[in-house]
Amino acid sequence: MKVRRSTRLVDMTHYLLQNPRKLVSLTFFAERYQSAKSSISEDLVIIKQTFEEQGAGTLLTVSGAAGGVKYIPYISEEETEQLIGEICNLIEKKDRLLPGGYLYLTDILSNPHYINSVGRIFASLFVDKDIDVVMTVETKGIPLAYAVANYLDVPVVIVRRDSRVTEGATVSINYISGSSKRIQTMVLAKRSLEEGANVLIIDDFMRAGGTVLGMINMLEEFKANVAGIGVLVESGDIEERLVEDYVSLIRLSEVNTKDKVIKVEKGIFHLKNIKQMAPSSDDL
Amino acid sequence: MKVRRSTRLVDMTHYLLQNPRKLVSLTFFAERYQSAKSSISEDLVIIKQTFEEQGAGTLLTVSGAAGGVKYIPYISEEETEQLIGEICNLIEKKDRLLPGGYLYLTDILSNPHYINSVGRIFASLFVDKDIDVVMTVETKGIPLAYAVANYLDVPVVIVRRDSRVTEGATVSINYISGSSKRIQTMVLAKRSLEEGANVLIIDDFMRAGGTVLGMINMLEEFKANVAGIGVLVESGDIEERLVEDYVSLIRLSEVNTKDKVIKVEKGIFHLKNIKQMAPSSDDL
Repeated sequence: MKVRRSTRLVDMTHYLLQNPRKLVSLTFFAERYQSAKSSISEDLVIIKQTFEEQGAGTLLTVSGAAGGVKYIPYISEEETEQLIGEICNLIEKKDRLLPGGYLYLTDILSNPHYINSVGRIFASLFVDKDIDVVMTVETKGIPLAYAVANYLDVPVVIVRRDSRVTEGATVSINYISGSSKRIQTMVLAKRSLEEGANVLIIDDFMRAGGTVLGMINMLEEFKANVAGIGVLVESGDIEERLVEDYVSLIRLSEVNTKDKVIKVEKGIFHLKNIKQMAPSSDDL
Repeated sequence: MKVRRSTRLVDMTHYLLQNPRKLVSLTFFAERYQSAKSSISEDLVIIKQTFEEQGAGTLLTVSGAAGGVKYIPYISEEETEQLIGEICNLIEKKDRLLPGGYLYLTDILSNPHYINSVGRIFASLFVDKDIDVVMTVETKGIPLAYAVANYLDVPVVIVRRDSRVTEGATVSINYISGSSKRIQTMVLAKRSLEEGANVLIIDDFMRAGGTVLGMINMLEEFKANVAGIGVLVESGDIEERLVEDYVSLIRLSEVNTKDKVIKVEKGIFHLKNIKQMAPSSDDL
């Protein structure tokens, strides 16, 4: 039985959102709704326009026999500004201060609303990079790294602090933590990363960058490439940064344990224009 | 400017999917689209019917001045059957066998497609429970626990193996691993769980259940309640199970390291009927 346009629009939107970056053929939708491909194309134009107007993403078309449509998730500049502002306000609450000037961020990193939104921001910032895998180190940043991986539709690879029997053979490296100057260990299952993979490194917090540098060294062991580095929060008062080419969403400009003052500011990053991003989708 | 129904349907579907279980007022949508509440109600009926027909979830209405609509994510029985079947086939591949009869499952637990789908299955199985928090123990199962938490719109709380300076004060317990009979430690930040919280425990793998029992003991320390226990895979050859009331999606019926044979079967669980689940939404 032929399905009405209104029902098709709701179901196609749901289907595309559940399957980010997957190529879906027009034939699949045509058969699912017992509708003509021309009607499906018209539906897709409406969905694409709506997504782009709301800054929620876009649809890319791939033409030819093996062609179809792909939903690329995105977030608008307005929504990003608002979210970063909200998180900044949360971070500045003084009860987050822990001994040694550390900050308790676990509540933010446990909250689906923030995790998802930050995940969409990183997926948007690296939208035009060729990424095969998202990598992070355990533990706090894993949900965030997973959210990014989900929007990019790639696996998330988790570097561990010690080796586990359930991981099989592993590669282990030592690295120097940038702030504490202590030697630490990182372990990654051999099976979890292929040679030549393009890897987006995501972490929740960066001081000098020792842990991120450790992950970069790990990638060298696997002959894999760094496709990008994204951290949610970085310390501002670092004399010598160990990594250069990274994006941070939030920068701690002041942490004063004596007076219990925490000051943060927005990091430096620029979202691309989603409408300019997808010229190939004009032929929808 | 008034927004057309087709655009509204796409944007409302997107908005509701991005905000599972959040109460959204009709006024919010009416203002967003400069449309009458009666039109918005009609849109919501279409969305609700489409979601229910596809087994994707339902919309619940809350009436009164502070009322509105909530999207409850769900997964259909057909989709669940297919997914569990897919994962079973993946698990039976013999190159997963590790020394000691352990199985390498990290690839499945890193893949957004499986993580999300299994997350939706658990969210569906516990759809009618009152859940404040999803809890897991590091590391492999964290993305899965986060996916469940995301569909239930509650925070994910991660129990750690050791204490970290970035967690603040912690509660630590010792427990006996059911299979290896060794004493192990679990640590949870004091701030991460409130007294009286209803907690859904999610883990990727269960042998005798020592780790899950450890989490139950941890909840007792926090005066929190077990709202449910869900594991993705359980061993079948266990003489004495340490926990009773749990749901497993997949059961390992045979792991033969000598002949390199892995056999799995579907666990015992029943999805409720989504259409019967939501009588209160009839007044949409």
